[in-house]
Amino acid sequence: MYDIVIIGGGTSGMTASIYGARAGKRCLLIEGNAFGGQIIYSNSVENFPGFTKISGAEFADKLFDQVSNLNVEIAYEEVVKVDIDNKVTVHTDSNTYEGKTLILATGTTHRKMGLENEEALVGNGISYCALCDGPLYKDKDVCVVGSGNSAIATALFLSEYCHKVDILVRGNKLKGEQNQIDILKQKPNVSIYFETAIKELLGKDELTGIIIKTKDGEEKKDISGLFVNIGQVPNASYMKDIIDLDETGYIITDEDCKTNIPFIFAAGDCRKKQVRQLTTAASDGTIAAIEACNYLDKN
Amino acid sequence: MYDIVIIGGGTSGMTASIYGARAGKRCLLIEGNAFGGQIIYSNSVENFPGFTKISGAEFADKLFDQVSNLNVEIAYEEVVKVDIDNKVTVHTDSNTYEGKTLILATGTTHRKMGLENEEALVGNGISYCALCDGPLYKDKDVCVVGSGNSAIATALFLSEYCHKVDILVRGNKLKGEQNQIDILKQKPNVSIYFETAIKELLGKDELTGIIIKTKDGEEKKDISGLFVNIGQVPNASYMKDIIDLDETGYIITDEDCKTNIPFIFAAGDCRKKQVRQLTTAASDGTIAAIEACNYLDKN
Repeated sequence: MYDIVIIGGGTSGMTASIYGARAGKRCLLIEGNAFGGQIIYSNSVENFPGFTKISGAEFADKLFDQVSNLNVEIAYEEVVKVDIDNKVTVHTDSNTYEGKTLILATGTTHRKMGLENEEALVGNGISYCALCDGPLYKDKDVCVVGSGNSAIATALFLSEYCHKVDILVRGNKLKGEQNQIDILKQKPNVSIYFETAIKELLGKDELTGIIIKTKDGEEKKDISGLFVNIGQVPNASYMKDIIDLDETGYIITDEDCKTNIPFIFAAGDCRKKQVRQLTTAASDGTIAAIEACNYLDKN
Repeated sequence: MYDIVIIGGGTSGMTASIYGARAGKRCLLIEGNAFGGQIIYSNSVENFPGFTKISGAEFADKLFDQVSNLNVEIAYEEVVKVDIDNKVTVHTDSNTYEGKTLILATGTTHRKMGLENEEALVGNGISYCALCDGPLYKDKDVCVVGSGNSAIATALFLSEYCHKVDILVRGNKLKGEQNQIDILKQKPNVSIYFETAIKELLGKDELTGIIIKTKDGEEKKDISGLFVNIGQVPNASYMKDIIDLDETGYIITDEDCKTNIPFIFAAGDCRKKQVRQLTTAASDGTIAAIEACNYLDKN
């Protein structure tokens, strides 16, 4: 029986592990993919205190080293189901674990566009990660869908070696950091299309182009790559019968990361909140672990 | 006229500056003492993501370098008064500045014991900072007052070179991290006194001892140094007629760091909240800056 089971090895889950282990609690950290979470796809992190400039992958490595120095047990497994009675039982693809408390740091995954043939084209022209797949599109024409910081970062990254980068924005403005937008606007090979949606994906086994719909009508664009950055959906659906989620699936907590079940806490991007940054993920992990310790000390 | 005036150059204030400057806002950061805030007194920080072990002063230096790389104006001045109408006017000991928004990241200072002659003996036997003053007490007998993480860290630090370290705890337990408590209990020159208070400070110009009161009666202890770690009081009293403070002086905000005045935000230790850690200070700075930017973009 663990004192604290933490699901998710991103910034919030790893920070929770650090605080839990340093408080002398027996902690299990479960991660099914790569440790680090979404930050590993960031080419350059410049807004986390203490690092003027660091790649997301390097930051994740440092954080994982920090966890590895402590007495935290680690399971590289995918969680498939969680049961509760007066404790928590976590079923993974290969094991079952029991915990007195649970911290959900499950993060989010990329929102899909909902277009026909989208799934089949992922990895064959459609990508959610410029840093992972961008180099495949050197000297090619590509599009980026989205309007936020991650769409802007994607376009900036691709502009360095793609022939042409068109950003397709559903609304009438970009919503990212102003200095990044200013840099983007100076790139000669970047164009921004406002009030524009994708109507159709072209190509059966490989993307060959798209049909976009603007206020002036429809237009066919021949492109090799389409980078989708239209937001995130929370990875908490297996908790839906156990704890309260909002209408879009985010976990509802109070400001101290407590869910409606007194021994279950949520931290990081999977939690319903306004601001999702590396700093707020670290803070959530801290608070969730301290509250889990408070629960353990009282029960 | 600045877009954002930030009072306080600790972790939350510097993080707010980073986010404000990167959002393209004209930011002024005002600090009257050393940049870094209270963390500069920590000998070893091991729970901030990305740093397995770093001194608080080194962390503060890195954060200040990061701020210095951005377009943030800096004033080394003490704030004495703040006025508001539809903007903020900040009066320092030497200048007056105007801002469209204000972020208060003013932190806290050490709580005093409230004993006779206490003020006179500060620096003459009484200290609030082992890291600053500890080396003066090599091979001497000292006491630490307090029960939390900072009292424990102080005792651990002093145990390395003082002859004897007695910890005086008002209640019946230590409240810090368990692994630190475990390390402390193994130190042969450290003793812990529970249910113990200081009744009197001895010595006129220099501390020569104390009289403590335990459940068994009173006892005189001859000591050279007394390290006080009994909590913090917020540095926000000059805001008391402008924004809502709680009964102990902490600034009342919602979970997005908004005070009752729409263009004034509070971040870090000066804000009423449950958990005060480096991670939560960074998170508060992030959120306060993003909310200030949201206000600026709408007004």
